[in-house]
Amino acid sequence: MSNADIGLVGLGTMGAMLALNIADNGFRVAVHNRTTSRISEFIKDAGPLAEKFVPAETLQDMIEALTPPRNIILMVPAGAAVDSQIAALRPLLDDGDMIIDAGNANFHETQRRAKEAQQTGQAFLGIGVSGGAEGARFGPSIMGGGEKQSWDRVAPILQAIAADYDGQPCATWMGTDGAGHFVKTVHNGIEYADMQLIAETYGILRDGAGKSASECAGIFETWNKGPLQSYLIEISAKVAEAQDPETGKAMLDVILDKAGQKGTGRWTAIEAQMLGSPVPVIEAAVAARNLSAALDQRSMGEELFGSLSGSLPPEAADSKLLEQALVAGKILCYAQGFDLLARASAEYDWSLPMPDVAKVWRAGCIIRSAMLDDMASALETEPVSLFFAEPFRSMIAETIPSLRRVVVEAQSAGLPVPAMASALAYFDTLTRVRGTANMIQAQRDYFGAHGFERVDQDGKDLHGPWLDQHLKE
Amino acid sequence: MSNADIGLVGLGTMGAMLALNIADNGFRVAVHNRTTSRISEFIKDAGPLAEKFVPAETLQDMIEALTPPRNIILMVPAGAAVDSQIAALRPLLDDGDMIIDAGNANFHETQRRAKEAQQTGQAFLGIGVSGGAEGARFGPSIMGGGEKQSWDRVAPILQAIAADYDGQPCATWMGTDGAGHFVKTVHNGIEYADMQLIAETYGILRDGAGKSASECAGIFETWNKGPLQSYLIEISAKVAEAQDPETGKAMLDVILDKAGQKGTGRWTAIEAQMLGSPVPVIEAAVAARNLSAALDQRSMGEELFGSLSGSLPPEAADSKLLEQALVAGKILCYAQGFDLLARASAEYDWSLPMPDVAKVWRAGCIIRSAMLDDMASALETEPVSLFFAEPFRSMIAETIPSLRRVVVEAQSAGLPVPAMASALAYFDTLTRVRGTANMIQAQRDYFGAHGFERVDQDGKDLHGPWLDQHLKE
Repeated sequence: MSNADIGLVGLGTMGAMLALNIADNGFRVAVHNRTTSRISEFIKDAGPLAEKFVPAETLQDMIEALTPPRNIILMVPAGAAVDSQIAALRPLLDDGDMIIDAGNANFHETQRRAKEAQQTGQAFLGIGVSGGAEGARFGPSIMGGGEKQSWDRVAPILQAIAADYDGQPCATWMGTDGAGHFVKTVHNGIEYADMQLIAETYGILRDGAGKSASECAGIFETWNKGPLQSYLIEISAKVAEAQDPETGKAMLDVILDKAGQKGTGRWTAIEAQMLGSPVPVIEAAVAARNLSAALDQRSMGEELFGSLSGSLPPEAADSKLLEQALVAGKILCYAQGFDLLARASAEYDWSLPMPDVAKVWRAGCIIRSAMLDDMASALETEPVSLFFAEPFRSMIAETIPSLRRVVVEAQSAGLPVPAMASALAYFDTLTRVRGTANMIQAQRDYFGAHGFERVDQDGKDLHGPWLDQHLKE
Repeated sequence: MSNADIGLVGLGTMGAMLALNIADNGFRVAVHNRTTSRISEFIKDAGPLAEKFVPAETLQDMIEALTPPRNIILMVPAGAAVDSQIAALRPLLDDGDMIIDAGNANFHETQRRAKEAQQTGQAFLGIGVSGGAEGARFGPSIMGGGEKQSWDRVAPILQAIAADYDGQPCATWMGTDGAGHFVKTVHNGIEYADMQLIAETYGILRDGAGKSASECAGIFETWNKGPLQSYLIEISAKVAEAQDPETGKAMLDVILDKAGQKGTGRWTAIEAQMLGSPVPVIEAAVAARNLSAALDQRSMGEELFGSLSGSLPPEAADSKLLEQALVAGKILCYAQGFDLLARASAEYDWSLPMPDVAKVWRAGCIIRSAMLDDMASALETEPVSLFFAEPFRSMIAETIPSLRRVVVEAQSAGLPVPAMASALAYFDTLTRVRGTANMIQAQRDYFGAHGFERVDQDGKDLHGPWLDQHLKE
């Protein structure tokens, strides 16, 4: 019976796809699902791969199907379900057996579970798996966290099933405990921002330049041959050119503009706040999704306030100009994401391998793009910030005037561009040595005696002349 | 011995000021401090008020100085210190005695402490106290959370010491458990945003129009006679006109532009993210503070990228135009804050009294302003959103063109206006019934089969024609 290479618990969409992928790569997988009828169903549907699966009706069956030290992947809904599966498995496991949480865990929970596992003598890995159902099936991007030797033990399987970029598997150990899930969280935040930036340019093309969906598709296709080449631009072209089989209209035009979210984008914003690491483009993207859901408010808003025409001068809605604006916005958003990773790495003692983060995102995941390859190189030479690393520094310098132009024209026309505007404000803030926070420091000192530093002398917690006056009666 | 009306633990700046305020209003206060030498020092410095204080060298002394049911205010640093004081006090207290946490607690901790107190039969209040040292001494704004009858028991003292607005004390029960501290948190988030909006207009006056600090002071003084009349505008004028006694220069010009924060602004952003309630202006303000601290990066940024002149056409840096822009920004920021309160109220079952929130902020606290009085009335007639409530709807309609103009001109000149730009994007998003999230929904459906709704039919979780194609090999 002990003839499977790895176990997998949870045959939902993602779990099923991952199991097929592992089997496809020649490994035998013991599969279990809480609703057991799903197990035989899954194997029946697996076609020629069926022989690679060992059905495990119970967790005990799974234990028996695996040779120690066992490796068991959990692909169950993040949260309580993970803990209850771990609790059910733990008593059945031997020392050295390993549980691998491949779900969308919050990294704080992964940190807790890693700690709990340490106390049992059993191993634990938290791996972020990106790429959706298709990625899970044909090659995801895998970001691992846990003890290095635990990772090494399953690396042959994870690297075999991962996406391949130019011969290099997109499956990388990021650091201890929650490092993998944290990197995945930032991936998701960037994904939100990337999508929002694209949606804003789409809005300018549609409302500002009166382009049809299929004209937009053509523009995205062109962009996909330049610096913006990426999965998200590629699929933007595909969805823009798709026709609704029912009405014959462009599919985009019949889809309601109410975006859903599973909450993982907001985690990035929350962690960034906790670390004091600004990610305004990501925050703007999350806010835009939340506001998109407020359809009643938007409808009432348009009725009560009216809205501007949204029309842009043709040269301001030019596709070359927009392409450059998007390049600038994208780089600035990634710079924020990598800065956040650096901050977290220091805070949690991970020593995150920044170039490897960029590399693991080059294929398999939603944000995969040509630019990430250059980012990997840039992060090797410039560990401080992408903002200052070539070729990105030059690309920003070259494209920022286009971003500025587009933001200004869109806002003049009444088109919302919150993510692009945030990127621009970020750039303008970071390129001005004398900002306006001296006013804030003065106010804080006035009302709360919080103190300030001076431009012309050393010393902290200095106070203005106002304090003596107004705190005395 | 049992002759004090209330106990107070923690004689730091805020605690000392609060104790003096209570004594000033005729109540006897038993005071305790962990470093006991501080107690006699404090009483010695209290002058004629000294006779109102009962020194309590130990917590037991404090218990004996109070008649049951006792009321004891904690004014110690938020976090572990509060829990350890509660743990030290609890065994000494009788049933029905009450601990009142007046510190800057995170409301989640207040919720936990309220629950723990319930199990002991002792009462617990969490009160947010705003207004800094001066407010604590002469009349703060007090936002209470806990059981209503607990609040009622100490309301006479809290209302006596609170700021007075037109005969009404700014001390109000907001709801159960963490309601008071939550309202205080949102207050602080709005405070951050209000300050950032002012700093941005100051930047435009200084860099865009070449105004001196004292010219700015004059403009703020004028604004303080109009719709912007508020404590923050008032003190902006004061700090702008202040001279540095050492150099004779304007004080503002020698203060370093590196803003500090104690983290309470970020709590608003975090809670808003958790509730899915967008507060982009507040987020922009927190990000701006974080970026202001990155002085090295900003200095390197200016060196590597240069910065634009920042000069605005005179009519775009006009003080009347800026005033109107600030009015629009401020209203939109408050609308976000009140929307967040409404969301939290539903989530935590508080039934927050919205008009009373606006009322309690009218005096004593940092964000006190003339506008809050109108907001209180507006929220009585329009419980949905300030955005749609008169007179704010008309004020927004009237001032948004100025905000748009200022944002566009500032961005064209390279001046960062992240909070104002966020306010504008918020307005433009909420006044356009057809947004661009249809693109995001199409992308999500393409890569993750997340489904969408349609504009022309009912039904959720609909899919595009692309799904069948690309998920099959």
